[in-house]
Amino acid sequence: MNQLSAVLKKAGDMMLQYQQPRVYAKGKHADFVTEADLAVQEFLLEELAKLFPTAKFFAEEKKDNVLTDELTFIIDPIDGTTNYFRKRECSVISVGAVENKRPVLGAIFDPYQNRLYHAQLGRGAWCGETRLRVSEEPIERALIGLGTSPYYDELMELTGRTVGALMPRVADLRRTGSAAMELCDIASGRSDGCFEWLLQPWDYCAGVLLVEEAGGRCGNIMGGEVTYEKGISFMAANAVCFEQLQKILQDVKNGVI
Amino acid sequence: MNQLSAVLKKAGDMMLQYQQPRVYAKGKHADFVTEADLAVQEFLLEELAKLFPTAKFFAEEKKDNVLTDELTFIIDPIDGTTNYFRKRECSVISVGAVENKRPVLGAIFDPYQNRLYHAQLGRGAWCGETRLRVSEEPIERALIGLGTSPYYDELMELTGRTVGALMPRVADLRRTGSAAMELCDIASGRSDGCFEWLLQPWDYCAGVLLVEEAGGRCGNIMGGEVTYEKGISFMAANAVCFEQLQKILQDVKNGVI
Repeated sequence: MNQLSAVLKKAGDMMLQYQQPRVYAKGKHADFVTEADLAVQEFLLEELAKLFPTAKFFAEEKKDNVLTDELTFIIDPIDGTTNYFRKRECSVISVGAVENKRPVLGAIFDPYQNRLYHAQLGRGAWCGETRLRVSEEPIERALIGLGTSPYYDELMELTGRTVGALMPRVADLRRTGSAAMELCDIASGRSDGCFEWLLQPWDYCAGVLLVEEAGGRCGNIMGGEVTYEKGISFMAANAVCFEQLQKILQDVKNGVI
Repeated sequence: MNQLSAVLKKAGDMMLQYQQPRVYAKGKHADFVTEADLAVQEFLLEELAKLFPTAKFFAEEKKDNVLTDELTFIIDPIDGTTNYFRKRECSVISVGAVENKRPVLGAIFDPYQNRLYHAQLGRGAWCGETRLRVSEEPIERALIGLGTSPYYDELMELTGRTVGALMPRVADLRRTGSAAMELCDIASGRSDGCFEWLLQPWDYCAGVLLVEEAGGRCGNIMGGEVTYEKGISFMAANAVCFEQLQKILQDVKNGVI
């Protein structure tokens, strides 16, 4: 973890060095990549390959992603790209690893706060030297992170209905624009749950282990465990409100509420 | 402004001193006040009365608010109270002043980033020594701050419909949980607009002058200028997308979209 931590901190320095990064549209609505995403990804792939010579890699800005049972790093070089080029200071570097398709390591670095969130399977979730623990807020007092799935036209109406259904049932919503940061928030007890109707593995891989090792739960909204081959309807929450949040989200999807 | 700035920084120190502030429910859904809100408000009222002996005061945690034509400070001791006690590090102290019911001064202090945003009528908007300027993003690339009006049951369904209608028409939404912080974001060009179906004068008073002095616009969603006697349907945006955002919001309210 010390070597990985050094790599992430260097990657964070790279991220902060770009004052006016060039921004490229990726085709889909509101989907952008910057030259910094590409440079940070290249750096991470090179450095992690030195530390883990036999590992496979799976990354947001990489075309040939295939998931096997081998140790595979799943990487988002900058989670929160829009926040990044709008200078909102809420973007993180997310590096997770799965083996036999289950998470074994997660590290998320927030270069603005110089905070490294990290977890290894069975060893707890940490921010630096501080052990993390999810909250125990019940659903009616819960702060829920809203994912808007901005790249998927067909999910916008569903997202709107979800907001209308959640508001009277929870304390309030937040939307940071970085799913990985929201999972750090849940692991740290600063919020109580989050969801997004379609989220990609690089957005949640590292964060899932953080939340689980901090005593929380993650899953597919429609049931079953989190998987890492392709995007899923993703949710996470503290252990107290996970099932109630899941039921509300399923009821929205099924048109019951 | 120097004396006011010193008062705000002291108030920020008070805010950060409370490690586990006692939290009191105010009765309405998700509406809380902490002992820190009350202490910071008392401090601000005392110190501002020394600096401006003839001024009137109007504050969130104060019962007898009456707005006259005289110089009146409109104060939110901690904007983003839920963020504050959940340790989300996104809460600010907001002090605005109106004269003849129009804003003449606005100061917002973010104690976590140690940033003072300030504006005086006709003298520009500033963050410390840096002049602020709103963005020029058009509506389809706009990042819009979502207000959920969490204290008002009747607005939840409307808020959900607004999210569904906005998502395909803008780049994405954000929800910070501090309206004053969102107005700082717009003034600084980190976002492009915001709205809340019912927002109170202490939430927006200081921020309105910041946005306007940075070249943006604020108004009542349903038309007309911002007023300060009581809560309104509030919106703000850069000058490029203000009218388009207002039209979308009006169409949602009128059930046209």
